[in-house]
Amino acid sequence: MAFSPLVDELVESLRCLPGVGQKTAQRMAFHLLERGREGGERLAGALEQAMSGVRRCDSCQNFADTELCPICQDVSRRNGTLCIVESPSDLLALEQAGDYQGGYFVLMGHLSPIDGIGPEEIGVERLLRRVQDENVTEIILATNPTVEGDATAHYIADRLADRPVLVTRLAHGIPVGGELGYVDGFTLGHAFRGRKPLAD
Amino acid sequence: MAFSPLVDELVESLRCLPGVGQKTAQRMAFHLLERGREGGERLAGALEQAMSGVRRCDSCQNFADTELCPICQDVSRRNGTLCIVESPSDLLALEQAGDYQGGYFVLMGHLSPIDGIGPEEIGVERLLRRVQDENVTEIILATNPTVEGDATAHYIADRLADRPVLVTRLAHGIPVGGELGYVDGFTLGHAFRGRKPLAD
Repeated sequence: MAFSPLVDELVESLRCLPGVGQKTAQRMAFHLLERGREGGERLAGALEQAMSGVRRCDSCQNFADTELCPICQDVSRRNGTLCIVESPSDLLALEQAGDYQGGYFVLMGHLSPIDGIGPEEIGVERLLRRVQDENVTEIILATNPTVEGDATAHYIADRLADRPVLVTRLAHGIPVGGELGYVDGFTLGHAFRGRKPLAD
Repeated sequence: MAFSPLVDELVESLRCLPGVGQKTAQRMAFHLLERGREGGERLAGALEQAMSGVRRCDSCQNFADTELCPICQDVSRRNGTLCIVESPSDLLALEQAGDYQGGYFVLMGHLSPIDGIGPEEIGVERLLRRVQDENVTEIILATNPTVEGDATAHYIADRLADRPVLVTRLAHGIPVGGELGYVDGFTLGHAFRGRKPLAD
């Protein structure tokens, strides 16, 4: 860019955001400079604080400001169930649904040997220690219904096989509000195999 | 979000970026926290510096770090032509094309009475002063080919009617590399009316 090293640097820096290329970064920079300087300053502060201040919860591996995240601090949620999710956004979706009242364990990824992500990287040992220390009675595997997510779930289930803990998996089936005609065959197959008496 | 006030604030702040809603802001925040802390810190610094340091060029109204932007400082570009564009990104596109070697004037918008943007807001008086002071001989109107852009161009042309200055407009026609079948009727009309002998 010909006119300002500061603007150049801003555009270049914005490209670290996922899904933001040269043109989008330019548009964002110009928007902030023209109409959003206050927002930009707030964002600068929030970024600085979050980048230096956010750590991992010692218990569930989720992002937290303190040693334990609020969920792990809450003793009422240590009820012997532990829900395993791949990412903080999955945890958030479950929390927003509001049905679940136990603890979590966030893998921050899934097993992916090709990317060098093995059991150590996703914290399986820490999970096993926690299962023992907290007398966990049920592990709910809520990894994503993808090949990697399923493989990760199976691996964890295998590692838990010799422990006195019930391992469950979220149900697969037709999404509520979905139309049958738009649901894929695999999901329909799961829904058929998992059918229940109407009284349930 | 349940787990970290710092992450909450980061997600909320990211929403000041254009086209970024709740889900995208979350994805961006998690991406930075998981895999891009260095990029996030760099962005924080760039934002802070740009928000406080970037001003408008006194001569062309474009973003600049100093009183005059590099283009306005360059005496070789004061050759009596002035190209009027709506935004810094338009200027950038023309600079990248590399055909034009004169000065610019950036309106930072277009006339839009409904939004309260009149001649004063886009700096028409400043432009007229500059035309006089710098003995400008040609004004190239390069506003966007939209209703507002055309209206702005016509307004500026009217204000310049009594001055000894040639007012020109960028040519409309078929984009280079375009296929006729995909070009709209208005553009084809312009291309027909603006046809030229083959020798040109």
